[in-house]
Amino acid sequence: MTPAFEKLQKHLKQFPGLGYRSSERIALHLLVEKPGRLPELVAALEEAAKSVRRCTRCGNLAEGELCPICADERRDSALVCVVEHVPDLVALERSGAYRGVYHVLHGKLSPIQGVTPEDLNLGSLLRRVAGGEVKELILALSNDVEGEATCHYITQHLGDLPVKVTRIGFGLPSGAGVLYADSVTLKSALEGRRDYQ
Amino acid sequence: MTPAFEKLQKHLKQFPGLGYRSSERIALHLLVEKPGRLPELVAALEEAAKSVRRCTRCGNLAEGELCPICADERRDSALVCVVEHVPDLVALERSGAYRGVYHVLHGKLSPIQGVTPEDLNLGSLLRRVAGGEVKELILALSNDVEGEATCHYITQHLGDLPVKVTRIGFGLPSGAGVLYADSVTLKSALEGRRDYQ
Repeated sequence: MTPAFEKLQKHLKQFPGLGYRSSERIALHLLVEKPGRLPELVAALEEAAKSVRRCTRCGNLAEGELCPICADERRDSALVCVVEHVPDLVALERSGAYRGVYHVLHGKLSPIQGVTPEDLNLGSLLRRVAGGEVKELILALSNDVEGEATCHYITQHLGDLPVKVTRIGFGLPSGAGVLYADSVTLKSALEGRRDYQ
Repeated sequence: MTPAFEKLQKHLKQFPGLGYRSSERIALHLLVEKPGRLPELVAALEEAAKSVRRCTRCGNLAEGELCPICADERRDSALVCVVEHVPDLVALERSGAYRGVYHVLHGKLSPIQGVTPEDLNLGSLLRRVAGGEVKELILALSNDVEGEATCHYITQHLGDLPVKVTRIGFGLPSGAGVLYADSVTLKSALEGRRDYQ
C-alpha cells in the first residue's frame, strides 16, 4: 500500500476497539469505496477540534462556556454527581434516573498507574463545593480500590464544608439473584441493606 | 445400548447442567470404566434419602431436627436472612460476611409460573417472627419482579409484628464501574446511595 494509506491506517488503529484488520477496512472504505466522504470527515474533525472543549464548570464536553447539562436551568444544580469519565455521565443520563448536574474527574486516583490528584479535575470540584451552591455530592465512582481511594481523597479535602456526601449503592445488580453474586458483592449488599417499607 | 443403560442415562439427564452427551458419558463411566463405584453410589444415595431432611426451623438441609446453622449457638438467632434457595445460603456463607441465621423459602412468588404463597416456606417464617425471637429480617431475595413481589408479600403479612425488615443493597457489583451498568441498576444505585463517612 501507499505511505499515505499506511499513515491513515496507523491513526485509525489507535482508536478504541479498532485493530489491524478493522482499521485497514475503514481506511480502504474511505479511500477506495467512498472517497467523496473524506472531505466531509476532514471538515467534521476540524470543526470538532475547534468548537468542542471542556465545560468550565463540570468538565463534561461543551461547545460554549458550559455543557448542555450545566446550562439547563431545569436541572438541580445543588445536586452534583461525581463521575470518572464522560461515558459514565452518558450511562447515568440514559438511565433517566437523575435530574441533578455532574462533575467529571476524567479518571480516578491510582498510585499504581501514576494517576495523582493533580491529573484529575479535582481542584475545580473542591472550589465548586466551597462556592456554597452544592448541597449534596453523590460519589458515583467505581466499586473498586481506586474508586474508594478517590472517594476518600474527596471527603478528606472537603474538610468542614457544609455539604452532604453520599456514595451510590453497591450490591446485587438488576435482575440478579444471590446465588451467582461474588462474595465481595454479597458482603457489600449485606452491609448496604436498607429498611424495607 | 441396553434398556438398563438407557434408563440410567435418562435419570442422569434430568440433573441440572447435564445434557445428552454428558449423561451418556457419566453412565458409561459408571457401568464400563468404574463398575466398582456403583454399589458405593447406591449406598450413598440410600443413606442421603434416609437421613437428609429439611430443618424444621429454617428449611435448610438438615440431618437431625435442626440444620448445622440453626444448631450453632454462636450464630445470632435474632438476625434472620430470608433466601430463595439453599444455594443462595451457601453463597452467603461463603462470603463470610454473615453471622445470623437463615430462612429458606424454596422459591419466590411467581404468578406466571404458578408459584403461590402456599408453595413456599412462608407460613413457618411468619410463625417464626410471631414467636418474638427475631429482631431483624434481612430480605436477600433476587433483584427482580418476583423477588420484589415476595418481599412485598412478607411485609404485608408481618402486620404489626415488632420486627425490623431490611432488604440487601442493590447497585454496582464489586469491581464494576458506572459505564457498563444497565439503566435499572444505575437507578437503584442512585436511589440506594448512602452517606459516605
